[in-house]
Amino acid sequence: MAPHRVRVDALAPEMTLGPREARHLHVLRLREGDEVRVFDGRGAEAGATVALLDDLRAVLTLGERLSGTAETPQPVTLAVALLKGDKLADVVRAATELGAARVQLLVTRHADAREIGAQKLLRLRRVAEEASKQSRRAVTPEVLAPVPLTELTWEGQLFVAQPGSTDRLTDRLSWDTPVTVLTGPEGGLADAEVTELIGRGAVAVTLGPRILRAETAPVALLGAIVATGV
Amino acid sequence: MAPHRVRVDALAPEMTLGPREARHLHVLRLREGDEVRVFDGRGAEAGATVALLDDLRAVLTLGERLSGTAETPQPVTLAVALLKGDKLADVVRAATELGAARVQLLVTRHADAREIGAQKLLRLRRVAEEASKQSRRAVTPEVLAPVPLTELTWEGQLFVAQPGSTDRLTDRLSWDTPVTVLTGPEGGLADAEVTELIGRGAVAVTLGPRILRAETAPVALLGAIVATGV
Repeated sequence: MAPHRVRVDALAPEMTLGPREARHLHVLRLREGDEVRVFDGRGAEAGATVALLDDLRAVLTLGERLSGTAETPQPVTLAVALLKGDKLADVVRAATELGAARVQLLVTRHADAREIGAQKLLRLRRVAEEASKQSRRAVTPEVLAPVPLTELTWEGQLFVAQPGSTDRLTDRLSWDTPVTVLTGPEGGLADAEVTELIGRGAVAVTLGPRILRAETAPVALLGAIVATGV
Repeated sequence: MAPHRVRVDALAPEMTLGPREARHLHVLRLREGDEVRVFDGRGAEAGATVALLDDLRAVLTLGERLSGTAETPQPVTLAVALLKGDKLADVVRAATELGAARVQLLVTRHADAREIGAQKLLRLRRVAEEASKQSRRAVTPEVLAPVPLTELTWEGQLFVAQPGSTDRLTDRLSWDTPVTVLTGPEGGLADAEVTELIGRGAVAVTLGPRILRAETAPVALLGAIVATGV
């Protein structure tokens, strides 16, 4: 049984958690003296011991630091159009498992939604935090409020899935610079949007000749990346 | 706007559909004389014209046959452990979009479920049919009732996702023979199960160092396959 992973603000010799996390440790039947892991969501992870546990708080003492091994060689950003309903939560959850360092929400021409409420954005951030625990990552991906596609900037390489392209992600991918993968809304990106991205240096890659739903394409693209072993 | 795709039992000069599909064509505001597409779920697809449409039936007349271009060069089977709740429906839907020709359900050692009801299996088959329409495939994947993992047989190559493996799917994949990808239940496959599969010729491949949920792994693996352009 792998030790329970606890998110903390920062790794410190002694870390105090509030009533909510204390209750959670109770539910997991942890007791004083038990071993856990702590991580700060920015890549630092360490062993820790439950030094004190009551209804109001838990105090953990820092153990050995672990090297974060679950991250890609360069940060991977998923830039994804706003989607209806709970689909973005599913995408954020899977993207976190698949090693994305950042999820940048986008407003595109054929948008399924043009804005996202503060509560919903907060919920996506919680989904990312929960998924990073479950997938044993020390880094929680940032989920960034939407920007119009035309205002998206990126560092390194940007790949956009484009039906009809014959370029293969794995042939074009390099780990010398950061990687961004971009997927559209249910109605797809407009041709003009793809053309404009290519004009700015994006590479259009194939995901085969079938029509993918907007929530499947990002998982498939990130799957192709992690299948290279990162 | 792409023409509406209608599933028929077999392509024939004149095809009659029942009240349910007739109502659906009404909802889509189709009228006599409109063009649609027909497909038989086994790879044949053609244009067709609505010759008659009333509340009880629709009659379609066959047009030009289309070559099915949405299939992989060799059939891809997804062999997936039974999962709880509605997760299998999500997996079948995504696998259909990603070109799987067949979904073989499995009973594994750490099983989330050991059997599946007839109604639930029927529902998975409907999900596959609906997803094949939406992804514009002429083939509907078969969804096969569960077999114990030890009784699974396969033709060609079998890839199993295994944390710790350094073999890459894309390095090992060949399109000379059929392909099967296999993923486990929430608790993962038992080491003995993986060892036994490898003994029978399976190749263990990596999906990176993170822990993937049971419903993410098949989508990621199939994503890696379609990213090769098939």
